Amino acid sequence: MAELPDKKTAFIDWYLAVVEEADLSDKRYGVKGMNVWTRYGFRARRNLDHVMVREIEATGSEAVEFPALIPATEFAKEKEHIKGFDAQVFWVTRGGLTDLDVPLVLRPTSETAIYPIFALWVRSHRDLPLNVYQIVNTFRYETKTTRPFVRVREIHFFEEHTCQVDEETATARVRSNLAAFRRMARSFALPYLSVRRPEWDKFAGAHYTIAFDLPLAGARTLQLGSVHHYRDNFSRPYGIRYEAADGEERYVHQTTFGLSERLLGAIVGAHGDARGAVFPSEVAPFEVVIVPILSAASGEAVARAAREIADELRQAGRRVRLDDGDDRPGAKFYRWELAGVPLRLEVGARELERGELTGVDRLGRKLPLARVRLAEAVAGALTAFDLELGRRADAAFREAVAPATQLSELAGSERVRLLGWCGEEACGHAIERAIDGALLGTPEEPLPFAFPEPKACIACGRTDGVRVALAAQPM
Amino acid sequence: MAELPDKKTAFIDWYLAVVEEADLSDKRYGVKGMNVWTRYGFRARRNLDHVMVREIEATGSEAVEFPALIPATEFAKEKEHIKGFDAQVFWVTRGGLTDLDVPLVLRPTSETAIYPIFALWVRSHRDLPLNVYQIVNTFRYETKTTRPFVRVREIHFFEEHTCQVDEETATARVRSNLAAFRRMARSFALPYLSVRRPEWDKFAGAHYTIAFDLPLAGARTLQLGSVHHYRDNFSRPYGIRYEAADGEERYVHQTTFGLSERLLGAIVGAHGDARGAVFPSEVAPFEVVIVPILSAASGEAVARAAREIADELRQAGRRVRLDDGDDRPGAKFYRWELAGVPLRLEVGARELERGELTGVDRLGRKLPLARVRLAEAVAGALTAFDLELGRRADAAFREAVAPATQLSELAGSERVRLLGWCGEEACGHAIERAIDGALLGTPEEPLPFAFPEPKACIACGRTDGVRVALAAQPM
Repeated sequence: MAELPDKKTAFIDWYLAVVEEADLSDKRYGVKGMNVWTRYGFRARRNLDHVMVREIEATGSEAVEFPALIPATEFAKEKEHIKGFDAQVFWVTRGGLTDLDVPLVLRPTSETAIYPIFALWVRSHRDLPLNVYQIVNTFRYETKTTRPFVRVREIHFFEEHTCQVDEETATARVRSNLAAFRRMARSFALPYLSVRRPEWDKFAGAHYTIAFDLPLAGARTLQLGSVHHYRDNFSRPYGIRYEAADGEERYVHQTTFGLSERLLGAIVGAHGDARGAVFPSEVAPFEVVIVPILSAASGEAVARAAREIADELRQAGRRVRLDDGDDRPGAKFYRWELAGVPLRLEVGARELERGELTGVDRLGRKLPLARVRLAEAVAGALTAFDLELGRRADAAFREAVAPATQLSELAGSERVRLLGWCGEEACGHAIERAIDGALLGTPEEPLPFAFPEPKACIACGRTDGVRVALAAQPM
Repeated sequence: MAELPDKKTAFIDWYLAVVEEADLSDKRYGVKGMNVWTRYGFRARRNLDHVMVREIEATGSEAVEFPALIPATEFAKEKEHIKGFDAQVFWVTRGGLTDLDVPLVLRPTSETAIYPIFALWVRSHRDLPLNVYQIVNTFRYETKTTRPFVRVREIHFFEEHTCQVDEETATARVRSNLAAFRRMARSFALPYLSVRRPEWDKFAGAHYTIAFDLPLAGARTLQLGSVHHYRDNFSRPYGIRYEAADGEERYVHQTTFGLSERLLGAIVGAHGDARGAVFPSEVAPFEVVIVPILSAASGEAVARAAREIADELRQAGRRVRLDDGDDRPGAKFYRWELAGVPLRLEVGARELERGELTGVDRLGRKLPLARVRLAEAVAGALTAFDLELGRRADAAFREAVAPATQLSELAGSERVRLLGWCGEEACGHAIERAIDGALLGTPEEPLPFAFPEPKACIACGRTDGVRVALAAQPM
């Protein structure tokens, strides 16, 4: 029961320790950056996927799955795209005992796998919009230090790919994706910045990129996902056209929306504390852990009651773990706090007598829960827990972002900085040097708090055409 | 609307046509044998997975996921296993712009990925049994002709891997897997033969293999899945040992249970008919399709009623497709029969007046369904449909298997053959030559029908130690 490193001063060490001690991922696999989804971690991933699927399907998107291997010839068709990914893909060059005629790329993302087939699926305006998504693993030959969930070589990935009749409709799809992500983020209790990336940092091949950034400790941010407008940048090389109502052949406009297991890293990083992980209830592998408090006199009755309570809550649709192992209750409390379970129920002789169980949520708040109608009381306790978790995350988010008006404020900044930027790339790079990080870009959606509007570019001092921008140190 | 090839005389052509016309899989992807899961096909796959997950988790197995890439060094540790797979794996040899020091195998199955980690997870008898499963894609460099779902190069795969304290407990796990598969197969309305494979046909590295074979047209069978007892064949090279209660170090005994998307091919192949696919309701992408029968006078009211009915059934948890497109009703009937939807609801002015809808199930049976309490009536209709589908499949299954007492009966057999076998490998091969196929093995579970017990080996005529065996032409 070693103590965790300090989250504030040693964030990365703290993060790695929580992921390991909570048994969310096993990184002892024989290939660097390819980790094992443990039983516990997989449950969190399944719940995460469930939220993503629910929200994207609510917008009319349908699931598909394309192959993991992409012929080198298809992969090379969009020039900017291949330039962006060339150095970070795994190559399959041999099948059985012979060399392949055309080497295959293990998908780093699926544009080049999907678009040749989109060219077959889309014939007429009646086939549009085409909104499909897949949840698959993607592969990147990372040379940087890998971190569980956050930077790995095999990535559990969500990607939506759509075809629209024109640029405007594609813009509307981007909006719809932003709204879907807002709903997902609410389930994760994650506040974030929605930011249009500068030209030099957009996705390889995109017209523009909007990313979601989560402020973490210090000036650090973690990109949670992104939405891209491709215009017809891919539909031209891949020949995705349709016959419009007026009989003309036109190229589709495309969008994509990407998310990944990184969201799990974000949830751990944002909500965790000195005692371990803290999961919002929709993502928690178990929402409730039941710990029987046995004594010599009441052991049998308490054990039976604990099993009944577990069954009752499961019937009500709750994900429940009954910890009836041999360890002392204190050791169990410690373990399930580390694991981030939202609500612990203590069941002992006293509680049964009183007809009231002791609930303790992962934020340390004690709640008496009446034994009758327990499922309702538990549902209420979980909702209250989620709300408070969100409230605390919002407060931390507000704290983590601060305006700056001088480049000198950026060096060693302990916060993400809101500043004025004239829009010139040279000034953007000056800002990046000053903060030793990146110009994230300009807010795409209103920030959830007020701040003084910057009057001048923090780098060159120009006052015309100045816009709000964000700078930070992306993880 | 071309007619489908004849199922009886041109089974493969019929199968390929149904898969394509029902839009279950798109095989126009640029790598042979790697197909695209279409929107419709993916829905069937999701339902299939749901059944597998439900039944395996009912036995206490938990989901995990191991990486897709396996270092060549780990892959080579179990000698029989590597011999079995060496010629059919894809090799990753390059990462980014450089050659990898240790080439990586794209998993053809995951023993060699999982067992080095099992060696870390298993320490004590308290860690056992360890029952985990994963649903992932596996990759095989098939050189034979590929077929959607049945023989592909990227396979949607279910694999359970377990560690047990000893051989007997592992045998009990095998039994539990056989029972789980029996429950799954009931959901798929698939009868099958449960067969212990002969020594020369067991899984590479296994102590023994039990496979599930589905008889199809002619003497053809399709292997639906398999369960393997490994004894300590893998735990020794991979060092998976535990401290027993008595303080001794022992090697675990292991089992695996494998299923795949092939089950979807089996469902299409077993249940489909001259009009297309037929899905049992648990697997059907849509359980119900609603076709509004519009007329000039009643168009608006009917369209509204059809939407209300769709909503009502969805609220009741049904998977529903409302086909409100512009085609004539006849064209819609044709399309959804091809697609295998279990139940069609026709909604017209007459039906609404009468308060009774016309239901037609995919076996062509007409049923009046009262508008009040429609959800209940639909649930009843689907149950009746599933039962009848199962009854027909059982009858076809019974028809497809026949005893044989002479080798000469095997040549050109139109049925799977039940015969006597002395157990000698030479006789087994003689049988295989005679039927131009395989000796599937000996039944592991009682056959669901009576047959005359064979008295002698069909090949050598010996009468002592003779056992029942099955011979067929596996697809």
